[in-house]
Amino acid sequence: MNEAREKYLAISGGVGGAKLCLGLASILSADRITFVVNTGDDFEHLGLHISPDLDTLTYTLAGLSNREVGWGRQGETWNFIAALKQFGGESWFNLGDSDLAIHVMRTEMLKSGATLTQTTAALTNSVGIKHTILPMSDDPVRTIVHSEGGDLAFQHYFVRDRCEPNVSGFSFQGSERATVSKELRACLDDPALSGVVICPSNPYVSIDPLFAVAEFGDWLQSTSLPVIAISPIVGGEAIKGPTAKMMCELSVPTSPAAVAQHYVDKIDGFVIDERDREWRDDIKALGLETIVAQTVMVTLADRIDLAQCAIDFIRRLNSGN
Amino acid sequence: MNEAREKYLAISGGVGGAKLCLGLASILSADRITFVVNTGDDFEHLGLHISPDLDTLTYTLAGLSNREVGWGRQGETWNFIAALKQFGGESWFNLGDSDLAIHVMRTEMLKSGATLTQTTAALTNSVGIKHTILPMSDDPVRTIVHSEGGDLAFQHYFVRDRCEPNVSGFSFQGSERATVSKELRACLDDPALSGVVICPSNPYVSIDPLFAVAEFGDWLQSTSLPVIAISPIVGGEAIKGPTAKMMCELSVPTSPAAVAQHYVDKIDGFVIDERDREWRDDIKALGLETIVAQTVMVTLADRIDLAQCAIDFIRRLNSGN
Repeated sequence: MNEAREKYLAISGGVGGAKLCLGLASILSADRITFVVNTGDDFEHLGLHISPDLDTLTYTLAGLSNREVGWGRQGETWNFIAALKQFGGESWFNLGDSDLAIHVMRTEMLKSGATLTQTTAALTNSVGIKHTILPMSDDPVRTIVHSEGGDLAFQHYFVRDRCEPNVSGFSFQGSERATVSKELRACLDDPALSGVVICPSNPYVSIDPLFAVAEFGDWLQSTSLPVIAISPIVGGEAIKGPTAKMMCELSVPTSPAAVAQHYVDKIDGFVIDERDREWRDDIKALGLETIVAQTVMVTLADRIDLAQCAIDFIRRLNSGN
Repeated sequence: MNEAREKYLAISGGVGGAKLCLGLASILSADRITFVVNTGDDFEHLGLHISPDLDTLTYTLAGLSNREVGWGRQGETWNFIAALKQFGGESWFNLGDSDLAIHVMRTEMLKSGATLTQTTAALTNSVGIKHTILPMSDDPVRTIVHSEGGDLAFQHYFVRDRCEPNVSGFSFQGSERATVSKELRACLDDPALSGVVICPSNPYVSIDPLFAVAEFGDWLQSTSLPVIAISPIVGGEAIKGPTAKMMCELSVPTSPAAVAQHYVDKIDGFVIDERDREWRDDIKALGLETIVAQTVMVTLADRIDLAQCAIDFIRRLNSGN
C-alpha cells in the first residue's frame, strides 16, 4: 500500500500515552491516525462525568496541558476546590477551575443523549483538534483495584489514597457488557488500517481496560495487522505513575520483558529503551520482534522521534523484513 | 411579650434585600430572625441548580460577598467560564470559579434527595451562618417575564438580555402547586412571631413570587401580625436593579406610594426614605402607617440603623401606639 494512505490506531491511557500520541499526531495527519483511549478511569464525582484520560489527551493535543505535571491545564487556578472545601464538600479530587469546564460540558451533553464518542468529538473539535479521539467504549467500564484493604474504585486508589494500598489485581466492571462504538468499529474494519501502537501507558490500569472490552480485545488478538507496544518500564522503573509499584506487588519483575509477556498474545513487536538492550533476547524468546529506541520523551522532538520509530517498526513488520 | 423573645421574619430577594438582612442579623440573634428568600430566580443551567437569591444572602451573611457589585464572591476568578467559552459552552451567565462550589454542592444534595430547605441549611451552616435562611418553597417556582418579545425565563431576561426588553407583566410558573416547607410553616405558626419585614427588594420579581405561593401569600394577607415593607424606590429611582424601569413599562408611577399600593393588601406599615417625605400623606391615605428613615444603605451602620428602625416600627404597631 502507498505509505501515504496507511492508517494507524494508537491505544493510550493518560499522561505517558498522551506524550507519544502528540508525537504521532505531529507526524500523521488527522485521517491517518486515530487515538483510542482508556475510559476505565472515568468516574462520576460531584455530579460530573469525569474522563481523566480523554481529558489528558484532549489538553495535550490542543496544547492546553500543564507540561510540568502532565495532567490538567496550564495556568490552572484552584478557587473552586477551595470554596468546595469551605462548604464541606469532597475535595480529595483536585478539580481545577478551567478544567471544570470540560466536565460540565461533557456531563450536559451526555445527559442530553449524546454518546461519549459524540461528546468527545464535539469537545475536541471545539478546541481545534483535527485528530479523532475515541473512547474505548460508549458503555461504562470502571476499573476496580483489588487491594489489601478491599476493593477500591480506581480514583479512590489513584488519587484519594495516592496509590498507597498494595494491589493484588484489577477488574473492569461493566466490561462484559461493553461494546465498541460504531465509530471505533469503522476504524477496525477500515481496509487502510495498517497497524496498532500500544502507547507506553500502565499495562494494568490503562491498557488492560481496553483489552477487557471483549470486542476490542478479541479483534486485537485476532487481527493480522502488526500490533506493537512501547515499554512503559525503563531501567527497571516506570517513567510515570505506579506501574513499577504495581508490578512489585503483583510479584512480577519490573522489566520490559515482563510487560512484553503481559501483552504477548496481543502484540507482534515490542519497543524497549536503549538502556534495556540486555532484555532483547528475553523478548525475542517470547516470539516477538523487538527494537531499541529512546523511549523517554522529554521534548517534543523526543515524542516525534519515538512516534516515527513506532510507525517505521510497523512498516517493517508489514513488509516482512 | 418580653422584647427579647419576639421573633421576626424577613422576606428578601437578592442584593437590595440582603443588605437589610445583614443589618437584621447584626441586631437579632439566630433564634429571633428568620430569612425567607425568593426562589423564583432559580434555574437549571449547565446541569446545575442555581439559586441566585439564596446565594446572595448566604454570601452576604457569611461575609463572603463581593461588596462592590453586591452579588457573587469577593476575590472571584473567571477561569471556568473562559474555558467553557473555549469549548463552545453557554457563557452568558457569568459563573465565578469559587461561586461554582455552592451550585455543585446544592445540585448534588438535591439529587441525593434533600429538600432545598435542607440543602440551604447545610450550606449556610458550613460557612458559619447561625441564622436560618429558608427558601420560600421547596417546590419549583419559576418567574416568567412577559415582554414585548414574548415570554422569557427570568435569567434570560435579567442576565442574558440585561433587562432590556420592555415588560408587560410576570407570572410564576409552578406557584399554583407550591407549598411552604414544614420549616417555614413552623415559623409562621410560632406564637413568638411578632412581625414581618419585607425588605427593599424588587416588588415584581423578588417579592411577588413569594406572594404567589398561595399558602404564604394567604398567611401574609390574613395574619394579625404587623407586616411592614421598606420602599425600594427612593427619589423616583430604584437603588439597584430594574424596579423603576419595570414600573415605567407597566405604566406605574415610580414612587414609593405606588409600591405601597402594590403591597397594600399584605402590609400594615411602609417605610419611606427621608427624601420621599412628600409621599407620606399618599401612603397614609392607603390606610397604612408610615415612617421616614434613611433607607439607602451604604455602610454596615446604615444596614443596622435601618434594621433597628424596621423592628422598632413593628414594635410600635404591635403596641398600638
